[in-house]
Amino acid sequence: MPDDLPRTDVTRLAGKQRHDRTELDGLLDSARVCHVGLVVDDGPLVVPTAFARDGDRFLLHGSTGSPWMRAAAGGAPLSVAVTALDGIVVARSAFESSLHYRSAVLFGTASVVPPEQRVAALDRLTDALIPGRAREVRPSTARELAATLVLAMPIARWSLKVSDGWPEDEDVDVAGDAWAGVVPLRETAGDPRPAPDLRSGISLPPSVRDLTGPA
Amino acid sequence: MPDDLPRTDVTRLAGKQRHDRTELDGLLDSARVCHVGLVVDDGPLVVPTAFARDGDRFLLHGSTGSPWMRAAAGGAPLSVAVTALDGIVVARSAFESSLHYRSAVLFGTASVVPPEQRVAALDRLTDALIPGRAREVRPSTARELAATLVLAMPIARWSLKVSDGWPEDEDVDVAGDAWAGVVPLRETAGDPRPAPDLRSGISLPPSVRDLTGPA
Repeated sequence: MPDDLPRTDVTRLAGKQRHDRTELDGLLDSARVCHVGLVVDDGPLVVPTAFARDGDRFLLHGSTGSPWMRAAAGGAPLSVAVTALDGIVVARSAFESSLHYRSAVLFGTASVVPPEQRVAALDRLTDALIPGRAREVRPSTARELAATLVLAMPIARWSLKVSDGWPEDEDVDVAGDAWAGVVPLRETAGDPRPAPDLRSGISLPPSVRDLTGPA
Repeated sequence: MPDDLPRTDVTRLAGKQRHDRTELDGLLDSARVCHVGLVVDDGPLVVPTAFARDGDRFLLHGSTGSPWMRAAAGGAPLSVAVTALDGIVVARSAFESSLHYRSAVLFGTASVVPPEQRVAALDRLTDALIPGRAREVRPSTARELAATLVLAMPIARWSLKVSDGWPEDEDVDVAGDAWAGVVPLRETAGDPRPAPDLRSGISLPPSVRDLTGPA
């Protein structure tokens, strides 16, 4: 991470900042949704959307009719947050109670993925949503491709904060009667529900089995 | 929701837009984290943070030393996203594959909660993180209160989108061999882990038991 980019320096809780690109990639590869911030008209707009990491590129896609995607395609500066909640830190005081999280914020501008890279980029996006699914479904049609805008932002300016410690209560509170600890949180997938119009005799594909298998 | 606020109109997938304030409150009361967007220097910044709903107010808190909190306290326009992921929509094509979600975006400016309301607002924030916890812990100290900035934004300009349907595949795909359905997602809490410095004989408080009880 270059040193001349002040907004990627964590200003608060600097002890939680991480500089390891591997750790960033681990978060990006495990999260399903990001929050894209951009400036529209005279104010900020935050939009949740699916994404994928493709090496050093952060991929986004959406409808060609989406105003925020068009603004992003036009080079609007972006701030993109990817957040994972890992637990609740139950301290002995309200003040020290908090969350376990991994939080990345990326900055940059996106550009439209060139036509010859579009199919591969969309496959990455599909597999980020449902790993292994791209190879199980038919190729996108020309009409589908024409309706979809695929953008890529370089993963170059970013900050990463990780909170994974125990409550940091003061001695006077530790000596008191309040409980303290951590309650882990995780996302779990339930049993797949077949669509009402699913034809009989079609079995669960490996990609969907893997979503719900042992974590 | 007033009619003269164009940014609260959903421009894409208008069929997913909801106007029910009860549905908005249900999302805000169940989510643990929001993403606050604001404009700093010349660009956008997105910050994940805990929050609480207090009636018609959206409460935020943070350190008095936090640059983005200070900007927000100074009246910077905010866009705040609250997002819940409820499932993965596995369609018969990549194009129709998507997510089940509830997504709120609020717009407005925040102001500093006046001193006489600060303790109650912080209790709301504590109970949003760990329901019932505020009454179990000692009151905040003067030093803790002095270090904490509490902001409130009116819940007045907002949009809500809900995706909860089955895959919308075209007839030709429904007639094919691909599986389709929905894989539900939910957040689950694991067994509480006591802090290493927890004194012996202190039992799990009701608030923490309730976090991990039957959903």
